[in-house]
Amino acid sequence: MSKSFDIVEKIKQEAGKVNRCIEMDLQLLRKSMEPLLCEILEYGLLAGGKRVRPLLVVMAARLCGNNSEQAYRLGMAFEYLHVATLFHDDIIDNADFRRGRESVAKKYGNGIAILAGDFLHARSMYLVGDIAGQRGLTSFCNATSAIVDGEFLQLKNAAEYNLSEFDYYKAVMGKTGVLIASACEVGAIYGGGNDKQINGLKTYGEKLGSAFQIIDDLLDYLGDSEKTGKAVGNDLAEGKMTLPLILSLSAADGPDQARVQSVIADDLLRTSSFDEVRKFIEKYNGFVKARNYAEQDITEACQQLEMFDKIMQEETAFLGGLAQYVLARNV
Amino acid sequence: MSKSFDIVEKIKQEAGKVNRCIEMDLQLLRKSMEPLLCEILEYGLLAGGKRVRPLLVVMAARLCGNNSEQAYRLGMAFEYLHVATLFHDDIIDNADFRRGRESVAKKYGNGIAILAGDFLHARSMYLVGDIAGQRGLTSFCNATSAIVDGEFLQLKNAAEYNLSEFDYYKAVMGKTGVLIASACEVGAIYGGGNDKQINGLKTYGEKLGSAFQIIDDLLDYLGDSEKTGKAVGNDLAEGKMTLPLILSLSAADGPDQARVQSVIADDLLRTSSFDEVRKFIEKYNGFVKARNYAEQDITEACQQLEMFDKIMQEETAFLGGLAQYVLARNV
Repeated sequence: MSKSFDIVEKIKQEAGKVNRCIEMDLQLLRKSMEPLLCEILEYGLLAGGKRVRPLLVVMAARLCGNNSEQAYRLGMAFEYLHVATLFHDDIIDNADFRRGRESVAKKYGNGIAILAGDFLHARSMYLVGDIAGQRGLTSFCNATSAIVDGEFLQLKNAAEYNLSEFDYYKAVMGKTGVLIASACEVGAIYGGGNDKQINGLKTYGEKLGSAFQIIDDLLDYLGDSEKTGKAVGNDLAEGKMTLPLILSLSAADGPDQARVQSVIADDLLRTSSFDEVRKFIEKYNGFVKARNYAEQDITEACQQLEMFDKIMQEETAFLGGLAQYVLARNV
Repeated sequence: MSKSFDIVEKIKQEAGKVNRCIEMDLQLLRKSMEPLLCEILEYGLLAGGKRVRPLLVVMAARLCGNNSEQAYRLGMAFEYLHVATLFHDDIIDNADFRRGRESVAKKYGNGIAILAGDFLHARSMYLVGDIAGQRGLTSFCNATSAIVDGEFLQLKNAAEYNLSEFDYYKAVMGKTGVLIASACEVGAIYGGGNDKQINGLKTYGEKLGSAFQIIDDLLDYLGDSEKTGKAVGNDLAEGKMTLPLILSLSAADGPDQARVQSVIADDLLRTSSFDEVRKFIEKYNGFVKARNYAEQDITEACQQLEMFDKIMQEETAFLGGLAQYVLARNV
């Protein structure tokens, strides 16, 4: 990877092409769809966002030898599915804000948010089937099923304060990893990659998604809320067991373990004991260990890129840079 | 159509095959999906229902010459999408009951109902793409988009007491017609029909769906609530303009028209004036005229069946019988 490669700048540049694709599609939809529906789609789809999923599709397709502009449209489908999930999640989580402004559910009501999400859902499936064929659609639909399955697992986990690492990983993958992995896989399928390339890029996506989620969980304890725009301690307050806490609990001695478990099981104590729990995790090295997991993921992600032709320097630099960026981010 | 053909008995028989297909699919899902998700799918999918949409798929495929058992599985996908819509509709409409028992939203909560609906949505798309290919999937996704678009149109119409017949039909088609039409179309595509056959069966479905909705609207004024299990007058109470009322308003003299319009625009008056509005519709022949529309639809639906080979007696008898059944139903 060349030293002068600026991943943030490159993401911005490429994201602009994805945005133009979305704008063109919205223009098409406006010709036949109800104005209110179009207004909501515009509100939800053009609210910023880095467009990481679409760009993974585009880069994976290029690495497999397909340079067509149509890949941006295929990528757009992944943004549609992602935004559909956000519409629905904000209802489930009662979230009033999203990307710095009112959520669709809050602004337009739950019914409207459900329907608009369903619309994006259907349109994304149509686009993937149309552009990437049946094999692409199968990956995409499996990802959607796994996201829902992951949400159900998380509901179960919320009541389970003795979570194993395995369950944690399954929930993480369901939440963030599968769609990112599918973006890479479908891009590779569309790009005409062989099985080794397709599976390699899928693994790259899985590892990237997993690392992304671990860093997210770390920031929830250690982040600078002025920079991230999010308060720390949300996960603990909600009783959510994330990797740093799980790793510390399994390493702690009896009394420490018992004390923290009694805190986690108590709604009120959880909110007032954030500092205590953070110190507990520090004592048992949970933050360092979790970060090691994320670093291991990123190493494995980058290993997948080695199989690609050295000619594809720009694309491997992009995916490699993105992987390092996930690890380095503090917002 | 032979006189001895008992459509109700025939529907029951064929619906049994659809149910077995759903049970087999649930068994497969139980191997990899969260138990709670599977419980909800079972609750929602095996709650009765005539399985009309799946049977339309099966019959359309057979009429086009494909007798394979796989058609039941393709049909099942239409039931999945239909049930997904019911899960989401019951949240939007705050409906506590569905098919004689608690709705999924009421029993398990809105979040769960959203997620389970999303799961069925994705699985239905996967199945249609897998079994009926890209042309089938396009019809299916277009139907989903049109359903959502129809709901948005209905939201707009709810505030519009001077609805034109055209708007009414557009809303009707979005609500009931498009999915029924798509079931017929996709069945014909899967069955290997030519364009004339595919379009003919699609038209059959559109007309059937339109007639079904008109009869539904008539029953909301004239039904025997002991038989239908539904109270009369819901549409009026909700300010919903249906065909009998629209046709009467456009035929009424000035004072009658003004009086009923003032009733419709007033939340309280609407609920207390059901008998008055019913008499108004009777005076201006709205019920008879609306029924004529439904009869005309059914005639046009049955005309589409004439192009098929006389050998296909059983299938044309089924679709013809179903069309007459829609018209004759009083529940």
